[in-house]
Amino acid sequence: MLYFKNDYSEGAHPRVLEHLIETNMEKLDGYGEDKYCRLAKEKIREATCCPEAEVFFISGGTQTNQAVIATMLERHEGVISAVTGHVACHEAGAIEYTGHKVITIPHYMGKIKAEDVDKWVETFYADESHSHMVYPGMVYISHPTEYGTLYTKKELTEISEVCRKHKLPLFLDGARLGYALASGADLSLPDIASLCDVFYIGGTKCGALCGEAVVFTKNNAPKHFSTLVKQHGAMLAKGRVLGVQFDALFTDNLYVEISKNAIETAQMLKDAFREKGYEFFINSPTNQIFIILENGKMAKIKEKVCISYWEKYDENHTVVRFATSWATSCEDVQKLVELL
Amino acid sequence: MLYFKNDYSEGAHPRVLEHLIETNMEKLDGYGEDKYCRLAKEKIREATCCPEAEVFFISGGTQTNQAVIATMLERHEGVISAVTGHVACHEAGAIEYTGHKVITIPHYMGKIKAEDVDKWVETFYADESHSHMVYPGMVYISHPTEYGTLYTKKELTEISEVCRKHKLPLFLDGARLGYALASGADLSLPDIASLCDVFYIGGTKCGALCGEAVVFTKNNAPKHFSTLVKQHGAMLAKGRVLGVQFDALFTDNLYVEISKNAIETAQMLKDAFREKGYEFFINSPTNQIFIILENGKMAKIKEKVCISYWEKYDENHTVVRFATSWATSCEDVQKLVELL
Amino acid sequence: MLYFKNDYSEGAHPRVLEHLIETNMEKLDGYGEDKYCRLAKEKIREATCCPEAEVFFISGGTQTNQAVIATMLERHEGVISAVTGHVACHEAGAIEYTGHKVITIPHYMGKIKAEDVDKWVETFYADESHSHMVYPGMVYISHPTEYGTLYTKKELTEISEVCRKHKLPLFLDGARLGYALASGADLSLPDIASLCDVFYIGGTKCGALCGEAVVFTKNNAPKHFSTLVKQHGAMLAKGRVLGVQFDALFTDNLYVEISKNAIETAQMLKDAFREKGYEFFINSPTNQIFIILENGKMAKIKEKVCISYWEKYDENHTVVRFATSWATSCEDVQKLVELL
Amino acid sequence: MLYFKNDYSEGAHPRVLEHLIETNMEKLDGYGEDKYCRLAKEKIREATCCPEAEVFFISGGTQTNQAVIATMLERHEGVISAVTGHVACHEAGAIEYTGHKVITIPHYMGKIKAEDVDKWVETFYADESHSHMVYPGMVYISHPTEYGTLYTKKELTEISEVCRKHKLPLFLDGARLGYALASGADLSLPDIASLCDVFYIGGTKCGALCGEAVVFTKNNAPKHFSTLVKQHGAMLAKGRVLGVQFDALFTDNLYVEISKNAIETAQMLKDAFREKGYEFFINSPTNQIFIILENGKMAKIKEKVCISYWEKYDENHTVVRFATSWATSCEDVQKLVELL
Repeated sequence: MLYFKNDYSEGAHPRVLEHLIETNMEKLDGYGEDKYCRLAKEKIREATCCPEAEVFFISGGTQTNQAVIATMLERHEGVISAVTGHVACHEAGAIEYTGHKVITIPHYMGKIKAEDVDKWVETFYADESHSHMVYPGMVYISHPTEYGTLYTKKELTEISEVCRKHKLPLFLDGARLGYALASGADLSLPDIASLCDVFYIGGTKCGALCGEAVVFTKNNAPKHFSTLVKQHGAMLAKGRVLGVQFDALFTDNLYVEISKNAIETAQMLKDAFREKGYEFFINSPTNQIFIILENGKMAKIKEKVCISYWEKYDENHTVVRFATSWATSCEDVQKLVELL
Repeated sequence: MLYFKNDYSEGAHPRVLEHLIETNMEKLDGYGEDKYCRLAKEKIREATCCPEAEVFFISGGTQTNQAVIATMLERHEGVISAVTGHVACHEAGAIEYTGHKVITIPHYMGKIKAEDVDKWVETFYADESHSHMVYPGMVYISHPTEYGTLYTKKELTEISEVCRKHKLPLFLDGARLGYALASGADLSLPDIASLCDVFYIGGTKCGALCGEAVVFTKNNAPKHFSTLVKQHGAMLAKGRVLGVQFDALFTDNLYVEISKNAIETAQMLKDAFREKGYEFFINSPTNQIFIILENGKMAKIKEKVCISYWEKYDENHTVVRFATSWATSCEDVQKLVELL
Repeated sequence: MLYFKNDYSEGAHPRVLEHLIETNMEKLDGYGEDKYCRLAKEKIREATCCPEAEVFFISGGTQTNQAVIATMLERHEGVISAVTGHVACHEAGAIEYTGHKVITIPHYMGKIKAEDVDKWVETFYADESHSHMVYPGMVYISHPTEYGTLYTKKELTEISEVCRKHKLPLFLDGARLGYALASGADLSLPDIASLCDVFYIGGTKCGALCGEAVVFTKNNAPKHFSTLVKQHGAMLAKGRVLGVQFDALFTDNLYVEISKNAIETAQMLKDAFREKGYEFFINSPTNQIFIILENGKMAKIKEKVCISYWEKYDENHTVVRFATSWATSCEDVQKLVELL
Repeated sequence: MLYFKNDYSEGAHPRVLEHLIETNMEKLDGYGEDKYCRLAKEKIREATCCPEAEVFFISGGTQTNQAVIATMLERHEGVISAVTGHVACHEAGAIEYTGHKVITIPHYMGKIKAEDVDKWVETFYADESHSHMVYPGMVYISHPTEYGTLYTKKELTEISEVCRKHKLPLFLDGARLGYALASGADLSLPDIASLCDVFYIGGTKCGALCGEAVVFTKNNAPKHFSTLVKQHGAMLAKGRVLGVQFDALFTDNLYVEISKNAIETAQMLKDAFREKGYEFFINSPTNQIFIILENGKMAKIKEKVCISYWEKYDENHTVVRFATSWATSCEDVQKLVELL
């Protein structure tokens, strides 16, 4: 059985695992107070060219989104997101669970537009009864988006400017950030640190066993953030587990280097799909490929390949996702191509 | 200054007030355990032809929506509402505050369609990753809607059937229910009790100082509902205040009788608007009238009449609302007509 | 049947009711934006000698405690209360419902001691793992307490000083504040305003149909407090109902004047209990009298008098409460005394 | 520097780590749907002699306590815990964050007594106003307790019986369960499964990098528990990380075998403390040793040994904790003994 179902189907990248092994018996303080957490934070500050960044490690993506959003919002505020944003639809209501509304705006292949944010906020304050409504409190985007698309530097700059105009923190969910950085797009890690108020660098989908690194870029971490993370149940006693992994990922640019494989294998796959006349649902530049399959064809492929259901297209067609990762082998891609 | 801003600008209907006065010095138990609460509940059971109905009184509409929705939903569920539903946009996030998502579907002049609910739920369960999403847990509608429109008996029956098919309780927000019942529409109070699982009879906007009567129609009040209402901070020590008022409102059909005035005065007003060539934003059969005004004209009217801003129509026009109520006098309507 | 069960068994004081009647048909804005709310706020600012006070009206006591505490605390904080405090035990978990812990310290006849607060806070910060614990965020007291006892000016000053030392807002629950002010104790309304950061003046138990007046004394109302009150479901559309009542209560010192009757009738009753050899559970200077009754005696009294169960004393005795109010008649007291 | 600060200072036990390594590149489904999770669950069902047990893996202890308690309680209920229980004091309010009160009862060296639970519940229901209070909804204990003490089979049976009498689920927090099982105490894993409604087997402190195994023993897992775990942000995409580790821990009784080292080294240490005349704060049979140190002595020891502050004893003395674990070497114990 071939496996193109997602980008979290293996364990850790060998060098990450190796670092866990070599540090395993060191006696270290708990709760992220160990030296590997410190080292990893330092390396992230360097990689983001953001010396004042406050960095925290949290075990997973939904946990991170929940902890960041729930602690940065004021109680009367909600978070603005694309209607397709992960926080809007695929986190089982984790944001609402913390008492906050996800305010949805249109998406364009998973991305939002600065002008839509601007218009939404202007309309909100123009409404004479806005004090009876949920105030906009921050803007959430993902990069790559849930559709694998990427913001350009120009687009992110525009969104960032609108956010500053309205004093809304901008939060970038980088669950798959490695694949954005490895894609050759024009938005660098320092750009992101400079344009966003907070973002997270996804480990789970880019080489780690688990773990995400939250970066507050403007000396703006919520007061007592660690206590709040604990209150969310999100603090690991062995914080080292995350620190060690990010220490490895941010040594010798490993994070981006290993992500390149996902982009390359995805490119091979996209070329094959194109060549064989498959219909793309959208044109994604990263490691997720969305194809419209006739249902019979889909059933056939599924006999030999694990893939993800994405959504119903019409009565006879379904959108499915093929995902590559740092771990996808050219061999597997070849085998898949032969099956198509 | 004329006043057509809303339908809660006066105190209580004289007969409601009178009942408060005549019972004022009686010594009664607190927390809704008094005889007037019992009497009012009995009268509501009769008026709804629902002898097994469980009735509770709560001080206001948002409080009621919050208490009902938060206690009827399971933790993994959200409430389906029109995108224009009161719970979706004008309650400052009161539902999300309790940890639940408001799932929005399209509206048609404030109303939802049974088929949209059905389709949403079918699509939800067809999604292979729906266990990572917020489950549909109940359906919220308002009658009259936020646009003053009304469901027909046929429409409500269809919605009710879809709800039963999917085991979703149907909740009808009747903040202005009196005006629906007085409008001559084909949906009676017993119909509503029969088709809905829970609904509330609005007092605040239909003759009371404050207070709404929640009616659970299927022996389905959440266990320990009173304790939960207390936990929400929503239980009045002097529960009598609400019981006495609803006792008056449900004596001699007062609730519907006094509501007729709102419908009649609204009709007079609509005739005048029509005659004078004003443009209606929507055609509402109840006590709220939505007119598109040229901004200069609006400014001029506002010098002499209190009205509500509704929404921006275009650069030069605004939608405004004129509301009548049980208390609107023909005299005031005449004066307003003269100004138009 | 005589009725000494509680101090909320009648409706409103006649002059309060009268003011509701005389203003009933005035057309006023909703949500507390009307002139009676403004007048009442102004009168409260005068009565408290606190010209900068921000005043809000909320329908009931638990609602008020919940709204104030949940919006003044930071997310990592809890509220310190006597173990017998209303928020700690008789609000069905309304504070925890908002996500905050009630931190309990010992009580002395319902009161807390400044030194206990000080010691608790010092111990907290001395604990090296306090970042894994709930931080102290404010101090809650009631005056009169749940046992009818009163703080002296000296005691409240000490508590206030400890609170300021530790930067903890001091919140005084004045559900029965009228009875404290009418008792001849040395703590005046301006004292309270000066020593507390926020307190509320109870209407429900002291002459109103419903309603409490929250007073933020230091320009310290939480930002967007009205929106948060709405989010809690606690905002009445007809805010006038509360404004009109407090306007009456703070005209000609009505609030304190009518409360004196409760103190006087309670004194008559206490004299009679003492004379007849009843055992007091505690010695309360206000309108609540706690008596230890032999169970057979209790059963006998309950045949003719409505009273409140307080707590089990031992196998054969029970603590019960007799409450007087602004509405208690000397005649009823005489009848009760004859029965004892 | 010697390290006796806690029992989570190393990474994973070598055999656990090895299993992570050998399975690292296998392609597996996410969210706990992989074969190692299935295997681990099966082995836990066997080890607990509870074939119908529903097992879930969650990343950490506070997360687990929060997820279990928040989903098993009804909304009007709180959880009963010793005043020293982890959920009562060392989780930054994680339980209250979910809207539930922690109801505290006395502790005896960290343990609760069945009779205290019984009495609390009886008193609660005897109180005529209990519907205004937080209902008891479940009982939380830890084994070993926060003081390292253990329940006997007789004690746990009594608590279990009281819980069943009052229909309260019994939840046992086994963060350090391995050390209880390895201590030679009379309470076996099948006993625990039989007497408790839910418990968790702690991985983090007993050989894993992270992870706890929740066991619902009576076919009583909350409906949609996985979705609720996701909603809490507590679901790892790579669920395998936990499954693989518990698969190793429950192979060849590894979990208990490796825990024995903690008991043996703790015994060596306790013998030395006793011999050298140190004063024990309590007599703990497991891997945590609580010693009362004169402050000067403490300072001296801390120069060479990492230990935990526990609490202030008096002006001149402090209670400190020395912890051993599966990883503590006899060599380190010897070095420490020499320093004493």
